[in-house]
Amino acid sequence: MSAVSIGGEMRPFEWAARVYWEDTDAGGVVYYANYLRFLERARTEWLRSRGIVQQQLASEKGLQFMVLRATVDYRAAARLDDLLAVTVEPRQDTRTTAIFRQCVFREAMDGRTGERELLVEAEVRVVCVDAKTLRPRRIAEYIP
Amino acid sequence: MSAVSIGGEMRPFEWAARVYWEDTDAGGVVYYANYLRFLERARTEWLRSRGIVQQQLASEKGLQFMVLRATVDYRAAARLDDLLAVTVEPRQDTRTTAIFRQCVFREAMDGRTGERELLVEAEVRVVCVDAKTLRPRRIAEYIP
Amino acid sequence: MSAVSIGGEMRPFEWAARVYWEDTDAGGVVYYANYLRFLERARTEWLRSRGIVQQQLASEKGLQFMVLRATVDYRAAARLDDLLAVTVEPRQDTRTTAIFRQCVFREAMDGRTGERELLVEAEVRVVCVDAKTLRPRRIAEYIP
Amino acid sequence: MSAVSIGGEMRPFEWAARVYWEDTDAGGVVYYANYLRFLERARTEWLRSRGIVQQQLASEKGLQFMVLRATVDYRAAARLDDLLAVTVEPRQDTRTTAIFRQCVFREAMDGRTGERELLVEAEVRVVCVDAKTLRPRRIAEYIP
Repeated sequence: MSAVSIGGEMRPFEWAARVYWEDTDAGGVVYYANYLRFLERARTEWLRSRGIVQQQLASEKGLQFMVLRATVDYRAAARLDDLLAVTVEPRQDTRTTAIFRQCVFREAMDGRTGERELLVEAEVRVVCVDAKTLRPRRIAEYIP
Repeated sequence: MSAVSIGGEMRPFEWAARVYWEDTDAGGVVYYANYLRFLERARTEWLRSRGIVQQQLASEKGLQFMVLRATVDYRAAARLDDLLAVTVEPRQDTRTTAIFRQCVFREAMDGRTGERELLVEAEVRVVCVDAKTLRPRRIAEYIP
Repeated sequence: MSAVSIGGEMRPFEWAARVYWEDTDAGGVVYYANYLRFLERARTEWLRSRGIVQQQLASEKGLQFMVLRATVDYRAAARLDDLLAVTVEPRQDTRTTAIFRQCVFREAMDGRTGERELLVEAEVRVVCVDAKTLRPRRIAEYIP
Repeated sequence: MSAVSIGGEMRPFEWAARVYWEDTDAGGVVYYANYLRFLERARTEWLRSRGIVQQQLASEKGLQFMVLRATVDYRAAARLDDLLAVTVEPRQDTRTTAIFRQCVFREAMDGRTGERELLVEAEVRVVCVDAKTLRPRRIAEYIP
């Protein structure tokens, strides 16, 4: 389960990311490819929150994850110094694959009240493979 | 039209990219977000091949392009030193948007014969906007 | 003063960074250029800790910082999943420039005791400029 | 020798790089860390021009290069769509290390006459190591 039960309500896992100069482009906003880095950081931290460290998964079990498909909808642009929240909602797909539904939100500015703003919606399909043969392996252990 | 007519046959525009250390990750392959950089380089060069330089488009006409949606299918992985070919097949979508169908191929290795290999298929939806107001503007002039 | 006085002892400002896939290359370690991103994040957070947000500095006072010179010594390599600590020790240089001495350390692994390891030592010379004219401006207000 | 003798005059190896959106930041110029990517591309192509492909060097001889030290002086900023020329002037340092002196120039704009402009000067010290043990190995074969 990716979600945490709080008062009967399910909230997806989320991870914060700050926008630095490295993330932006000359348009003054985050470069479109770089949201995929934020998405991957959040998936990595979701795994870590479940006790799975990918470096160990590779060295101890010979397993790694590979992205098969990414669909990214850009709704609004993040800017320098924005504080982002990146969500992770996984679900099993096939025996060897999982689909992560992910959103990127901009947090309300310091000192301002109000809702956070949806910037990006994405869906990322991932397969678990044997790191040597690249053959698909059962993912159920990690994404029940 | 992005395609060039050769003997009655239409071939999409394409642009070469070499894989350098900067593009790869610890899995030994190109990091999944970095294919979007290759895709964008090819779109930029397709525009340049039609006489459109984005820096000038912004300063002279106050226009820029923004990505609304990207869908990327990862078929096989590119590795260090691979020579890639990135294709661009644009079509108008709405009055203000265009959809680029793009592929990334690995060229056959030097000294080997054979077909090049399809690594990535993508579709990228782009809108033309006023750089200040971010309001949509007619794209027909650029992508007929 | 960048340092905080604790029991008569001065400790430099520091900022944590986790190593993700995006930071690594096919050599299995962090790509050499990417340490400069970690260094810049730490400088940005050091400024933020003093109440200076660069986005506001640009929009409200028309000022920005530019790097004039970076010297980076690579002692040991960071790997995927490493937790890093990046230090910032600024000192004024000329009226318009400052020099940041910075280190990147690898934190001792979870569950292990021991010292953290020095990975990178760097010196970064920065100038404060008028964002429009790019003419140097007094930096004393920010780095006393 | 990296240099090519033309009419008794030695010219360093050089490699072209175009500035794309991915290279820039919200300051409207190339992000300072990204020049190190351009520098590395040029070193890689200098090696390739001598018949050395790093992927093969690793798999066949178990050797790789690691950067020990980089010093980068930023003289002027590159912008979107600029065409750059990156030079490579190697010299042997110790038995196991080499020092590359490198420059990044902006080519004169299309249709304009005039000199190209020096943007960045750098010195990069590299060691040749056994890819497994990371012990230094003789570099003379590659950089005579």
